[in-house]
Amino acid sequence: MARRPRRKAEETRQDILSMAEMLFRERGYVAVSIADIAGALNMSPANVFKHFRSKVALVDAIAGRHLDNATERFLPLDQDMPAKEQLLRFVLRLLEGHLQDIQKSPYIFEMVLSTIEAKLEAGNRYRTRIEEKLGEIIRKGMAEGRYHCRDPEHAAHTVADVLSCVLHPVLIVRDDKETLVHRAGEIVGFVDAALQNSAC
Amino acid sequence: MARRPRRKAEETRQDILSMAEMLFRERGYVAVSIADIAGALNMSPANVFKHFRSKVALVDAIAGRHLDNATERFLPLDQDMPAKEQLLRFVLRLLEGHLQDIQKSPYIFEMVLSTIEAKLEAGNRYRTRIEEKLGEIIRKGMAEGRYHCRDPEHAAHTVADVLSCVLHPVLIVRDDKETLVHRAGEIVGFVDAALQNSAC
Repeated sequence: MARRPRRKAEETRQDILSMAEMLFRERGYVAVSIADIAGALNMSPANVFKHFRSKVALVDAIAGRHLDNATERFLPLDQDMPAKEQLLRFVLRLLEGHLQDIQKSPYIFEMVLSTIEAKLEAGNRYRTRIEEKLGEIIRKGMAEGRYHCRDPEHAAHTVADVLSCVLHPVLIVRDDKETLVHRAGEIVGFVDAALQNSAC
Repeated sequence: MARRPRRKAEETRQDILSMAEMLFRERGYVAVSIADIAGALNMSPANVFKHFRSKVALVDAIAGRHLDNATERFLPLDQDMPAKEQLLRFVLRLLEGHLQDIQKSPYIFEMVLSTIEAKLEAGNRYRTRIEEKLGEIIRKGMAEGRYHCRDPEHAAHTVADVLSCVLHPVLIVRDDKETLVHRAGEIVGFVDAALQNSAC
């Protein structure tokens, strides 16, 4: 028997992901098993398992498909804006994106909760992109003479941690948008104050 | 029939809480129902319901019993220590406490996840105590001439948000203690830098 072409494997992979997303959306992440996904595709569970070794691997791929494409959050910022404004604009873009994810796709939140103890590759890639953007903004602030970091990459890493309270799904799900936008402003002001200090 | 004395009601309440904690510890938070707790106490579910209107109310009371007693985390700090040192000491005390909670009582983490969208009174009280302690430390730093906040209570609120990344159970459960202690040091350095800025 001829070897199946790679194209086919990639198509199967994408079919599994789309069906998993659809079922998660309909019935919730916890309620849907690998066997349900296989059944809905007229596949054997073993075939799904060949592509995704666990439900966590499936979540990682779905999250990746979504987050790797969230390019509008990382579009260039207006370079005429001062660094502090850029920072606020970027944080509000991310916050808006996260709130929409939670609202439009409640299963995403359930997925986040269920895999909270796993380190998802998709999450790491997303975090890296956030840190890169923060690094750009910090270097811009240094060029302006406003920020005085010794190590902008290191500062970007700490700022990404600090921003958890307005960006992490679990920490924003309880609050309304107005509260979160206000909090984002406070946190950005705080970050801006810290970055002006050369001890930072 | 004579009215049951208040003492009895409070005893029943405590019995329910202790049994709930025991069952949660044994079988996990999600697996145990109000009916299970009632059964184990030879009570009717309606009787349990009279004391706790929902599983969330039960979680709130258990969390309260635990957190309201976590007094060692809030003991006075050595007043000879500079404010930055006090801040680090306090954050490490809280981090240590939270890691122990997660490790010794895994059902607590499951409880946190299951009630993530609810605002628990016990959580609010705990957060208020943290903010009060942070306010004390910030005022101490102002007295030292190191910090220059316009409004120490407001700053304490923002700092409590910022500290989520080293204190919130969901944000610490993935990392080992060494990583977290390192992160706590970084975040405290960042907070200390921000508080030195009068814009803060």
